[in-house]
Amino acid sequence: MKPLIAQALHMGDECHNRNAAATSLLFKRFAPAALEAEVPQAQLAAALRFWASNDHFFLNLSMATCKAMLDAGHGVKNSSLVTAMARNGVRFGIRVSGTGDAWFQADASVVDGLYFPSFGPDDAAKDLGDSAITETAGIGAFAMAAAPAIVKFIGGTPSDALANTLAMTSITLGRNDAFTLPTLNFAGTPGGIDVRSVVDTNIAPVINTGIAHKDAGIGQIGAGITRAPLHCFAQAVSKLAATVG
Amino acid sequence: MKPLIAQALHMGDECHNRNAAATSLLFKRFAPAALEAEVPQAQLAAALRFWASNDHFFLNLSMATCKAMLDAGHGVKNSSLVTAMARNGVRFGIRVSGTGDAWFQADASVVDGLYFPSFGPDDAAKDLGDSAITETAGIGAFAMAAAPAIVKFIGGTPSDALANTLAMTSITLGRNDAFTLPTLNFAGTPGGIDVRSVVDTNIAPVINTGIAHKDAGIGQIGAGITRAPLHCFAQAVSKLAATVG
Repeated sequence: MKPLIAQALHMGDECHNRNAAATSLLFKRFAPAALEAEVPQAQLAAALRFWASNDHFFLNLSMATCKAMLDAGHGVKNSSLVTAMARNGVRFGIRVSGTGDAWFQADASVVDGLYFPSFGPDDAAKDLGDSAITETAGIGAFAMAAAPAIVKFIGGTPSDALANTLAMTSITLGRNDAFTLPTLNFAGTPGGIDVRSVVDTNIAPVINTGIAHKDAGIGQIGAGITRAPLHCFAQAVSKLAATVG
Repeated sequence: MKPLIAQALHMGDECHNRNAAATSLLFKRFAPAALEAEVPQAQLAAALRFWASNDHFFLNLSMATCKAMLDAGHGVKNSSLVTAMARNGVRFGIRVSGTGDAWFQADASVVDGLYFPSFGPDDAAKDLGDSAITETAGIGAFAMAAAPAIVKFIGGTPSDALANTLAMTSITLGRNDAFTLPTLNFAGTPGGIDVRSVVDTNIAPVINTGIAHKDAGIGQIGAGITRAPLHCFAQAVSKLAATVG
């Protein structure tokens, strides 16, 4: 999955809110293999038709990949690396490598974005879902410089996209050389949020996200940009300080 | 084909020397349809495996699309629009809308590029092939701002790619709003080379191209950038002036 994500970052995806390239690349690998495995033709046609109809298909795999990468870095003594960010429309929580299973929480943020026809801000739930695991792993809004065309979906301008990636370099532990950004002359994506840097700089992690309707069952009504609440990171630094002693 | 090319320009292709997105997008449309048409499974598997193995697959369709678009503009009285650029490794020729079937020729140029392992400039033919029809139609090197990652294949830097697109706006009749460039805030590609502007500015059309071996049968040994020879355009302007009277 990592080489596939790396390739998609060279093809205008940031693999959170834009997955057009990664969805197509995986489809192109899957279809011949499924035919060679003699999957029944009608069933395969229906499955491929479903897959081909949704450019966000790859997001499910992108999220799982990011979760697996971050879990590998969880539980390291004294580490200030953020290993999860998640939200449920009411609360926003983060988990940090060196502080075990604790979730540091604050109220969920409002999402600033573009709405599908007939919907608007009054219909919107606050920030919701597990997809911010992509930003936690250094893609999504952190790799937005890779995806200038995304602004037609979530708002803003291509220079905003570039600025978001550059700003995130101030709060990450380094750059991920496995995920490079052509428009930044192939520099790596800012990777690995450091709770200390967030508190030092007051720069909140940026998140590209879908906007869900506030009533259950309606689903996505738009997409935009939001920020992780700073209070989560301040709590995590306090706890980490107490742990380090 | 036009919407597909437009989409690929938002996904890091310039549809001459980089066709990774367009190849995948067309594959994703074709595979379910072929299954529903009950193409025999083993044959379809072999065809899709071939298609999926070559990211340049779409170039064949890209060239034909550009040729069809330009032929529609050929034969307009007094028009200074370039409707074809082609080369055969020895000579380079252009055709202009208002000058009928005449080809204005000069010696083919050397290509400056990157070579596949074990090959170098001494093995190279001069500029060769019909693929410069893409630049003639305003994609390829003219849309290089869309494809910063291409520099890993043809040489140069992402800022060179941007500069090439911007320079071409000085020699084109306009911009093609059907083909937009995210990194230039969705400005259209420079479209429609004007022989008069080439002669006025001395800016030669830039071309992304493969490098062929000088001996027949070996095939592609690299890829790079070249320029159309200015002498072709000077001849065309003289002929056009004589025609206009």
